[in-house]
Amino acid sequence: MLVNCVAYQEGRKLADIPKEDISEYVKRPDCFVWAALKEPSAAELDEMREEFGLHELAVEDAHHGHQRPKIEEYGDSLFAVLHTVETQGDELSVGEVDIFVGPNYVLSTRVGTERGFADVRARCEREPHLLRNGAAYVFYALMDKIVDRYFPVLDALETELETIEEQIFVKNAARSNIEALYELKRKLMTLKHAVDPLMEAVGKLYGGRVPQVCENMGEYFRDVFDHLQRLHATIEGIRDMQTTAIQVNLGMINLNETEVTKKLAGWAAIIAVPTLVAGIWGMNFKHMPELDLEFGYPLAIGLMIALDVVLYLWFKKIRWL
Amino acid sequence: MLVNCVAYQEGRKLADIPKEDISEYVKRPDCFVWAALKEPSAAELDEMREEFGLHELAVEDAHHGHQRPKIEEYGDSLFAVLHTVETQGDELSVGEVDIFVGPNYVLSTRVGTERGFADVRARCEREPHLLRNGAAYVFYALMDKIVDRYFPVLDALETELETIEEQIFVKNAARSNIEALYELKRKLMTLKHAVDPLMEAVGKLYGGRVPQVCENMGEYFRDVFDHLQRLHATIEGIRDMQTTAIQVNLGMINLNETEVTKKLAGWAAIIAVPTLVAGIWGMNFKHMPELDLEFGYPLAIGLMIALDVVLYLWFKKIRWL
Amino acid sequence: MLVNCVAYQEGRKLADIPKEDISEYVKRPDCFVWAALKEPSAAELDEMREEFGLHELAVEDAHHGHQRPKIEEYGDSLFAVLHTVETQGDELSVGEVDIFVGPNYVLSTRVGTERGFADVRARCEREPHLLRNGAAYVFYALMDKIVDRYFPVLDALETELETIEEQIFVKNAARSNIEALYELKRKLMTLKHAVDPLMEAVGKLYGGRVPQVCENMGEYFRDVFDHLQRLHATIEGIRDMQTTAIQVNLGMINLNETEVTKKLAGWAAIIAVPTLVAGIWGMNFKHMPELDLEFGYPLAIGLMIALDVVLYLWFKKIRWL
Amino acid sequence: MLVNCVAYQEGRKLADIPKEDISEYVKRPDCFVWAALKEPSAAELDEMREEFGLHELAVEDAHHGHQRPKIEEYGDSLFAVLHTVETQGDELSVGEVDIFVGPNYVLSTRVGTERGFADVRARCEREPHLLRNGAAYVFYALMDKIVDRYFPVLDALETELETIEEQIFVKNAARSNIEALYELKRKLMTLKHAVDPLMEAVGKLYGGRVPQVCENMGEYFRDVFDHLQRLHATIEGIRDMQTTAIQVNLGMINLNETEVTKKLAGWAAIIAVPTLVAGIWGMNFKHMPELDLEFGYPLAIGLMIALDVVLYLWFKKIRWL
Amino acid sequence: MLVNCVAYQEGRKLADIPKEDISEYVKRPDCFVWAALKEPSAAELDEMREEFGLHELAVEDAHHGHQRPKIEEYGDSLFAVLHTVETQGDELSVGEVDIFVGPNYVLSTRVGTERGFADVRARCEREPHLLRNGAAYVFYALMDKIVDRYFPVLDALETELETIEEQIFVKNAARSNIEALYELKRKLMTLKHAVDPLMEAVGKLYGGRVPQVCENMGEYFRDVFDHLQRLHATIEGIRDMQTTAIQVNLGMINLNETEVTKKLAGWAAIIAVPTLVAGIWGMNFKHMPELDLEFGYPLAIGLMIALDVVLYLWFKKIRWL
Repeated sequence: MLVNCVAYQEGRKLADIPKEDISEYVKRPDCFVWAALKEPSAAELDEMREEFGLHELAVEDAHHGHQRPKIEEYGDSLFAVLHTVETQGDELSVGEVDIFVGPNYVLSTRVGTERGFADVRARCEREPHLLRNGAAYVFYALMDKIVDRYFPVLDALETELETIEEQIFVKNAARSNIEALYELKRKLMTLKHAVDPLMEAVGKLYGGRVPQVCENMGEYFRDVFDHLQRLHATIEGIRDMQTTAIQVNLGMINLNETEVTKKLAGWAAIIAVPTLVAGIWGMNFKHMPELDLEFGYPLAIGLMIALDVVLYLWFKKIRWL
Repeated sequence: MLVNCVAYQEGRKLADIPKEDISEYVKRPDCFVWAALKEPSAAELDEMREEFGLHELAVEDAHHGHQRPKIEEYGDSLFAVLHTVETQGDELSVGEVDIFVGPNYVLSTRVGTERGFADVRARCEREPHLLRNGAAYVFYALMDKIVDRYFPVLDALETELETIEEQIFVKNAARSNIEALYELKRKLMTLKHAVDPLMEAVGKLYGGRVPQVCENMGEYFRDVFDHLQRLHATIEGIRDMQTTAIQVNLGMINLNETEVTKKLAGWAAIIAVPTLVAGIWGMNFKHMPELDLEFGYPLAIGLMIALDVVLYLWFKKIRWL
Repeated sequence: MLVNCVAYQEGRKLADIPKEDISEYVKRPDCFVWAALKEPSAAELDEMREEFGLHELAVEDAHHGHQRPKIEEYGDSLFAVLHTVETQGDELSVGEVDIFVGPNYVLSTRVGTERGFADVRARCEREPHLLRNGAAYVFYALMDKIVDRYFPVLDALETELETIEEQIFVKNAARSNIEALYELKRKLMTLKHAVDPLMEAVGKLYGGRVPQVCENMGEYFRDVFDHLQRLHATIEGIRDMQTTAIQVNLGMINLNETEVTKKLAGWAAIIAVPTLVAGIWGMNFKHMPELDLEFGYPLAIGLMIALDVVLYLWFKKIRWL
Repeated sequence: MLVNCVAYQEGRKLADIPKEDISEYVKRPDCFVWAALKEPSAAELDEMREEFGLHELAVEDAHHGHQRPKIEEYGDSLFAVLHTVETQGDELSVGEVDIFVGPNYVLSTRVGTERGFADVRARCEREPHLLRNGAAYVFYALMDKIVDRYFPVLDALETELETIEEQIFVKNAARSNIEALYELKRKLMTLKHAVDPLMEAVGKLYGGRVPQVCENMGEYFRDVFDHLQRLHATIEGIRDMQTTAIQVNLGMINLNETEVTKKLAGWAAIIAVPTLVAGIWGMNFKHMPELDLEFGYPLAIGLMIALDVVLYLWFKKIRWL
Repeated sequence: MLVNCVAYQEGRKLADIPKEDISEYVKRPDCFVWAALKEPSAAELDEMREEFGLHELAVEDAHHGHQRPKIEEYGDSLFAVLHTVETQGDELSVGEVDIFVGPNYVLSTRVGTERGFADVRARCEREPHLLRNGAAYVFYALMDKIVDRYFPVLDALETELETIEEQIFVKNAARSNIEALYELKRKLMTLKHAVDPLMEAVGKLYGGRVPQVCENMGEYFRDVFDHLQRLHATIEGIRDMQTTAIQVNLGMINLNETEVTKKLAGWAAIIAVPTLVAGIWGMNFKHMPELDLEFGYPLAIGLMIALDVVLYLWFKKIRWL
């Protein structure tokens, strides 16, 4: 579905144009076209390929989807694949944004992404002095927005880790902690698969030899790279702590097992000792003088209780109970 | 066994040719020969060596088999070793495809591979504008097909991981989970050994200095590299999760142990406490007035039951039962 | 808040200058301005941007804060982000110092940092022969001070590790050890996130191509790099030992579990054996001659005690008790 | 001990020569000398040093032995250290082969190696068209043979791993598995220490700048490198699986522990419940009407058995027994 | 403290010189001065700085000590920091040797090192043909000696590992093994921190661009590098085995736990079954005919013993006892 398609000149909006006119505007050296598609059909992609003169292999990639994030050069144009990561309830959902960038056009298509990029267009149109930089600037602005949207997702994961850390030394939380740690790991990996390949790709857009279409924008792309590097470092930091947390959790589970065994041992003793005492006075020897005492029975009960009190205090002292 | 042997000119099939004529057609600058062998004997390989003028070391490698995936230059020709990975019941079976590529010939030999490459030939013949690119294009098409066939195998492994993940926090599934995780790891390693060395090798077919025979095909080989990189990243992702899953599984086993110990303790108490009570009234003291009560016995039984109900509820409350 | 703002000439203090005059002094080729801000507001940063002619992207980074340590070139000026790590009670608190360095100015802003850099300024003013090197020297001096302040923090972490190591083979310390090890890891990661990116960045200030503003100061920046490398190696060393310590701790927990089980088994036997003996003489067989013996009962008790003494000594011998 | 010493010309054997004549033959530009020593004494090495004109540092290394595999250039000659790995009963024994290669000589010395290289010499002499390549070819042939001998050793280790894998989910095999896994690791490390440094060294004998003596032999050395890379990849694969196997083994040990605890709990219940029942009817209450029943006793026994049957079936059902 | 200070000419000792004359001898192009300090005071270092014309930053590093091993260029002179590792009882003690090398002087200072380098000087003076190489040769000789002294330390650690390996599958050795493994790790890390940074630094003294003072000595420094690489590889090998050993140890601890639990279960059954039997005949049913049998009691005891013998044999058979 075509979301919108606008021609710009000197950083200012010229007109909304019908898709049939794209090829015409693209030919004009002084203006550029910025079109956006959403969940495009094969037919729409094909139409766009013809209007913009896109490379067949790139269009095929966009059509099949499920690509790894990457930025590829096709002659003097670029084809970029980015992943969006959005929170949906407790899960992360991954969408794909493909961007075709040529000297005077930008075409973005998004699949499986809830939030669009109308705000990017609005902000660009409010800043004509920057939009004047043309297609590369739009490319930067889209990429910057997508990368910026990773941060709240990562912040949520950091918060998840902190919540787990608060619970990790709490008794009886081991099962929920371990489930939460595994879930956290899965989400981290999702984010990592979006961030790491992109970081690698963006690193080639500034510094040494850069694609012609991105020239003179080095500081902007370095800025995006910088954000990606920060995301990457934070992800690695969380992964590292999460690995340690799993080990610590295992230690806590085993500590807890020991404590249960100690409790079992303590209470077993408290029941078994009076049972032994009762067994002794249950023997059938003829000559057991205390059996004839009037207060023999209450004394026996008293003895049992006394033994148990001693045992109980002893186990409390060595912290087995 | 020679599967087929065809000469092409200008991207179109010229004729099926007998193997004796290969050396003749290979000499013609305007056409190229595409031959395919299946489980070749030493004699067949030798014949091919002479007809195509292959390098001795390459033929020896093809003869011995069990090579690591690789792409080697011998003068102006290439020798490529690729692994095929096919699902056979619950197991993965690895086959080997060796491809000799020269300026105007392609010879492929496959060993231990069930599915052939007739579809590659058919598709190439339907697209003469592409086949016109010659031997390098056929090389690309074969490689692309082999790599494409990795994806369903990997998808199956991803599904296996997901199945395990659904089971990992289920009680009493620890043994089958751990077996499944180990099996998954073995399959992953099989795929990894096919993918990683090939990725490394294909990465040298585009970009900087490339073998002459592959020139001007950079975008195609980059595409294959891209697929391999995606496979590689997914494999690494599964491995990472699988490692964590094994640790989590160990945690679950230990948690389960603790629960068994708790149950043991709970039921032990429920049996031991009335045993103690019975022991007490089994003592032989003369003066135990309650023994003479008419309802002493039912009261005793009632006391035992009451104690057990209290214990049961208590253990339920602290979740030991 | 502007902490101070001074103009220097030939390594000597010229005058405290009001911020409105900065742009004037910065234009003079023979002197340089060194200003310091603390918790700057957006307005203050904007003012500085105009006076010093700072790059917009750098100012934006300084305004948003929470950057990864880095050193970036903007034309002939540098923008550096450093983290300060201070001990606050049992926790580490991270602050940020941003430094803008141009051919004849240095502007530092600090956020969330308790200790200022008045001592750096004082020392620089006492050594005019070094301060004569200009902005790059001030940059070095600030960076050197920040890096120097990491050492006592790291020393404290090393001491923490040693304290844990002394406790690690002590019984019943497993829980506190594991908590301490996790806490140590968290602090290490905090320090690591300050040190590692900075090391990488400083490594580009000497050796091959260096930013013009840092020329001829190579030996100084190599010295800072050297300190960072030492910090890095020590951090990695502690991490490595800490990982092993967690594994060892898990082993100790399991060893302890075994010991508890052994104790449980030993005492269970010591209680159960006389219970069995009592049970035997509690049977109601008619013909049990020993029941009629006068000393039957004390002998029975004696037997029980004897059996228990034997058991006790045996368990002591095999170290189960 | 001098094994043999032969002069070759044009790829053909000229004569067995006494060691005193070596220096003479080495001077002749059209022939080369191939000598082999076994467990050489310091005096023999010294003699060789003079005859061949070897570098002092290289001879010293050969004399001391226990070097890491390496290939070093000394002017226009090479000094190579290789490890042989031989199976001796259940153990691997490591020997050392040192090879000195000059423009027209090859001297090999072997220490602690059972199998010699007579077959290499025999094969070389059968192929004069290859031997004509001179010293570098002999160097290749020796290296190739040593590397080829690693394969059966590695195959044996792979078989060991497979044997363990078959045992790993078998009950009560945990102890022998863990011993076998540790032993496997030790052997793997031995092989790894022979293969990895050599791979690194051989990688410098083809491709870019190569030692002059090895020129034009690139395809041969690449072949050796290829074999080493295959060995390396297989070793890493086994290591990876072995690491996972140890973790899995730990999981199996813990699972087994749980099963033992379950069995203990099950049988404890089966014994304790009738004990309780017996205890109840062992009480001394006056009014226990069932005690007077004629079939009271058999009924009691019947009840005990019935309870145990129920318990047994229950524990079977939940798989505790 | 000045240990000694000697001037050499043409590889031969000229004279012991007082430290005031150093600056004079250093100026002579045909001779060089070799001085050695031990635990130098700040004043002594300052004096040396003036006599030899050392760089301020290098002297400062030597004064502060606790540097990471490194080799730094200051103009045409070198400053090297090396660690000595000496065995002191059961512990390793780390000392520091700093070496200043200029075109015609070598100054070494050692701190915290027991063994001096008198033997290096003696050997150098016995070999004037080598000492003729000047300061770089002395530098090599000192470094070579320090590195050589690492080998016996490492050998001791290898022996420690082997001792542990012999104990690792022995029962009841788990606690001492785990303590020994941790201790081994600590010592390994100490050695590693001495070896690894030095290896990196020495690698820059041969091959490509080398500091001028070390020119033409490449083969000697490669030899030192080679030794360091061997140390490095052995350290890594021990670390790898030690990591596995800790995991194996954990497995042994858990196996042992299982065995204890089995023993507990076995003996519990052997005590509980006759207790049950005694309980049955302790019931008070009127009609229990066997109670009246003359041999009822001995038969009952016999039954108990028989049951226990059966149980004992059974548990022996399944290896629980």
